Amino acid sequence: MRVSAIASLFAALAITTAIGAPARADDALRDQAKKLFEPIPKTAPAIPGDPATAEKLTLGRMLFFEPRLSDNREISCATCHNLSLGGVDSGALSGGHNAQLAGREVQTVLNAVFNKSQYWDGRTNDLKDQVVNSVMANPKAMLKTRGGPMAINPIELSANKQRAIDELKSMPAYVEAFKKAFPDDSDPLVYDNVGRAIALFEGTLITPDAPFDRWLTGDATALSDEQKDGLKLFIDKGCAGCHNGVNVGGASYAKFGVVAPPPPEYLPADDLGRYAVTKNVTDKYAFKVPSLRNVELTAPYFHSGATFELSKAVSVMGESQLGAKLSDDETHKIVAFLKSLTGHQPEVTLPILPPRSH
Amino acid sequence: MRVSAIASLFAALAITTAIGAPARADDALRDQAKKLFEPIPKTAPAIPGDPATAEKLTLGRMLFFEPRLSDNREISCATCHNLSLGGVDSGALSGGHNAQLAGREVQTVLNAVFNKSQYWDGRTNDLKDQVVNSVMANPKAMLKTRGGPMAINPIELSANKQRAIDELKSMPAYVEAFKKAFPDDSDPLVYDNVGRAIALFEGTLITPDAPFDRWLTGDATALSDEQKDGLKLFIDKGCAGCHNGVNVGGASYAKFGVVAPPPPEYLPADDLGRYAVTKNVTDKYAFKVPSLRNVELTAPYFHSGATFELSKAVSVMGESQLGAKLSDDETHKIVAFLKSLTGHQPEVTLPILPPRSH
Repeated sequence: MRVSAIASLFAALAITTAIGAPARADDALRDQAKKLFEPIPKTAPAIPGDPATAEKLTLGRMLFFEPRLSDNREISCATCHNLSLGGVDSGALSGGHNAQLAGREVQTVLNAVFNKSQYWDGRTNDLKDQVVNSVMANPKAMLKTRGGPMAINPIELSANKQRAIDELKSMPAYVEAFKKAFPDDSDPLVYDNVGRAIALFEGTLITPDAPFDRWLTGDATALSDEQKDGLKLFIDKGCAGCHNGVNVGGASYAKFGVVAPPPPEYLPADDLGRYAVTKNVTDKYAFKVPSLRNVELTAPYFHSGATFELSKAVSVMGESQLGAKLSDDETHKIVAFLKSLTGHQPEVTLPILPPRSH
Repeated sequence: MRVSAIASLFAALAITTAIGAPARADDALRDQAKKLFEPIPKTAPAIPGDPATAEKLTLGRMLFFEPRLSDNREISCATCHNLSLGGVDSGALSGGHNAQLAGREVQTVLNAVFNKSQYWDGRTNDLKDQVVNSVMANPKAMLKTRGGPMAINPIELSANKQRAIDELKSMPAYVEAFKKAFPDDSDPLVYDNVGRAIALFEGTLITPDAPFDRWLTGDATALSDEQKDGLKLFIDKGCAGCHNGVNVGGASYAKFGVVAPPPPEYLPADDLGRYAVTKNVTDKYAFKVPSLRNVELTAPYFHSGATFELSKAVSVMGESQLGAKLSDDETHKIVAFLKSLTGHQPEVTLPILPPRSH
């Protein structure tokens, strides 16, 4: 019995050590990760100079789901930014009706408020400008935006804006909602306020409490060993050089093919990326580093939407950006880590939109 | 002072009488209306033999918003049955991408559970069969459904069913959700259960508390005088001969053009209506009498979607069905009454759908 008791004691000590050692390794990894990443905050960030009142958010939600803003009265923000599907649509460029029109794969609206710029080519900085730009882009104009904003015909743009405003003004419920949302404006139903209201609503579409964020803030059980291995690889291989910060990306631009050009289906030759915005030759084939938040939900991947397989996207990135041929095991672990970036999805109740009055 | 007091007393009596007389007229109108109409119940009706558990409703809501049920993974029930817009889309047949494919104008899913049959030609009776029929109809097949169900290729239909089931089976969250929703089934993820779950969810999409229903159940202030005049005209002119019951329609078929054929844009010659289902010559150009619940929200009107103007729809109906040339004032009053049929719209929170796993 005494021998057995001592054996138990040793066993217990051994377990303590076994738990203690990874715990210390975890601490080191967490310290390293904290220098690179930040958790998504629990509540929506304020937009400077534009307080998010309940009236603005109600209006913004209505407009986000409002198909009558579009030229053919059929496409709303929610059509491509499906909030049931990680804020993107479910199609690829090759088959997708809407994505096809846009010329580039849809980027998620979730956590977009934390991106330093919007669009794959970063042609607008804040969400309000992105909204104004996108809502105004009817399918024809959207087709032309591939290659940059200069391709949009300004006369057409202005006509579309006016049509959308006229449409909203024809519905008394909208006239009232704009008055309530912007009580200090003498003429509240103007295009800039459409952008402000939608942008404020979009700012609420954040996904806190991802396993990675819970681990980062101290919950040791939130990541599996495989996911922690994946995180370590993600840092050591250099992925975190671009994919960092609160959005694990979204804060910089990078040439697609820094080390080696990816296959042409991933990088179609006719889309010059950020070059179209800056006309700077070093920006040829540069794109915004996308956020990897909720990346599990946002297939297909790349601006070209060329693959639905996250493991394929990881291995292409490794080769073209880092010159690293990742093993299947390494890719598998990095994918496991990336899945820990899926946060609590926003719960959105569908707005009831007013009937048309003409 | 005494004279003035007596004058006040007379004035008060006069007011009492003035209020009393219309109140008695109201009672007569209400008695007449109660024989023709019923209010929408406050809670969803039970579907016999298929109790609506929380698990079935959760699954049904997911599937209602699930674009990956469709062949191109882009069209869900919610695409055409937009719950922000009265359960229909906002387009007309002539311009509408989705409606165009379907060949007939979208009918609302709101209160569809109270209809005696589904589709403009009544080719299915219950919601479950409608769901199975519609979800399976990919755009190509839908195009062929104009003229009836026989036009759907049964081999294609079966292939589509299998593809949808395979797609759902590839996502572990759906495998789990079907198990929970149908715990007694040995193989719960089958097509019939897709239909059952969506139909049960659709059964919750009802719109109680319309002003007309509140008036019908005793709230004298719920209708304006104009609306009560409109109701009286609606009954006296004969509209209520077909548009009656809980759904103010949805319970019978009628030839479009009983008295006089409507202009061809309202009744295109190549759509034979219910005839395609029954092959009975008396059913040529017969269609289901649509529910007028929430009709204010469900433009455009007719199976042909030929007009967005409710007043135009009322006057065309008057001439073609009743041989009645309604005056502008009569039309205006009937439209005012029809707007009292807009009930409390269901508040639906968007489901979060699982990521694809292949």
